[in-house]
Amino acid sequence: MQGNTVDSVQDKALAVFGAEGINNPGHVRSVIRQGAWASHTSGLAHGRVQGNLVILPEVQAGDFLRFCQRNPKPCPVLAVSEPGQITLPSLGQGIDIRSDVPQYRVWRHGELAQEVTDITDLWRADLVTFVLGCSFSFESALQEAGISLRHINEGKNVAMYRTNIATEPAGPFGGAMVVSMRPMPAADVIRAVQVTSRFPNVHGAPVHIGDPALIGIADIGQPDYGDAVALLPDEIPVFWACGVTPQSAILNAQPAFCITHAPGCMLVTDLLNHQLASF
Amino acid sequence: MQGNTVDSVQDKALAVFGAEGINNPGHVRSVIRQGAWASHTSGLAHGRVQGNLVILPEVQAGDFLRFCQRNPKPCPVLAVSEPGQITLPSLGQGIDIRSDVPQYRVWRHGELAQEVTDITDLWRADLVTFVLGCSFSFESALQEAGISLRHINEGKNVAMYRTNIATEPAGPFGGAMVVSMRPMPAADVIRAVQVTSRFPNVHGAPVHIGDPALIGIADIGQPDYGDAVALLPDEIPVFWACGVTPQSAILNAQPAFCITHAPGCMLVTDLLNHQLASF
Repeated sequence: MQGNTVDSVQDKALAVFGAEGINNPGHVRSVIRQGAWASHTSGLAHGRVQGNLVILPEVQAGDFLRFCQRNPKPCPVLAVSEPGQITLPSLGQGIDIRSDVPQYRVWRHGELAQEVTDITDLWRADLVTFVLGCSFSFESALQEAGISLRHINEGKNVAMYRTNIATEPAGPFGGAMVVSMRPMPAADVIRAVQVTSRFPNVHGAPVHIGDPALIGIADIGQPDYGDAVALLPDEIPVFWACGVTPQSAILNAQPAFCITHAPGCMLVTDLLNHQLASF
Repeated sequence: MQGNTVDSVQDKALAVFGAEGINNPGHVRSVIRQGAWASHTSGLAHGRVQGNLVILPEVQAGDFLRFCQRNPKPCPVLAVSEPGQITLPSLGQGIDIRSDVPQYRVWRHGELAQEVTDITDLWRADLVTFVLGCSFSFESALQEAGISLRHINEGKNVAMYRTNIATEPAGPFGGAMVVSMRPMPAADVIRAVQVTSRFPNVHGAPVHIGDPALIGIADIGQPDYGDAVALLPDEIPVFWACGVTPQSAILNAQPAFCITHAPGCMLVTDLLNHQLASF
């Protein structure tokens, strides 16, 4: 059932982007820019880095960048724009950040105000764009290393949990770290630590392994975000810092105005996942 | 001769700090705070991270943090303070950044205005402190891996060169990357790449290996900063991004007010070098 769902999404994407265009990041962005794709970006532009989006007025941008600097595992910064800049040349040719994400969320004073497919009308000269690394890149590296990821096999969203691990605050930004969990046998845990250590810009090595209670997770069967997956008797749960952490920090800070991507609707960049490897 | 010089500096340090105190970072800082040591910190607090210091008014701090984010190899940020904050709890217990560096340089409009051992009188509520990783930590890791470093053996400063590698600018900060060079045989080059790749927060892997002309260095025998060292026939020059790069970017930007450490007179932190290893 769920396998069919995954396949049918991929079929729809193939029809929209074309068999050649679906793995061309510039083509993917141009289709999205024209408003012809307003859905998840998982499976698009195979092998390319996708990023979380945060757009804040300049007055809050300094605090947020300091927050990211102090919490690099949940908030790995891939690029920061100048105020008002709509391009991101270090991430891709011709990016227009106002239209190249399939779906945006507009937040006012910490409340979701609207969901739109284009923010050109909302653009202001004081807006600073942050693109943060996301787990798609390290999941791709784990799969290439032969590690099976249950949530992907089952067509689910990864299980995410609020923890009692405090982030290091900066200005109004702070709060608890959110983690994602992937269950795997011990041999794969060791390999997963090695593989993800090479990717510090997309959350890096795990932050915890084993007993969920030690990081304040009361019930592993009840994720705070995403979908629960089974934890088999021979498996160890492995926890990584998660990109929901900065989103949660922003909601807590309640900035007057903020734009993010909608969950799963990421910015597709020209960077190869392997270009993010630290060695 | 130069060996004797190194030894006599270490003898003087032993007399000032004591045989037990010389490797205790808190004790080292307290002696420096009292004004009893206004010299180089090389050889103090063995195994601990030492950092480059940049203090800027809040109005320039955001641009400078963006500059560092865009140029992590020459500008690895270990900590950023809040405006006016004099402590750096993530780097060491009881640090007072106004007095714990042996010698400070005060810059006004890009010109060296004074060199002082304490900046308490100059402190302002809008000053933001940046501590950047320095090559002491990765040199220590290279030596532990059995790689011989000629400039250290000869009691010299490392050879540094301006290159034609452009940094990614942010606001007024930009300019060419400065690199440090260490000559070594091929087998050591391979090992050095592996070892320093583990330390992205202290410049990380080399930026160039081999022909100096390819990065705009006309004469390897004439460093722009530091001391020349011999390059033997079986050796390859290895170039790392250097902490002089941000200093040079600051001089180019000519901020009205800025404080840095004096060359070689670093902030001694409580962090162990090995805590900076990414894996």
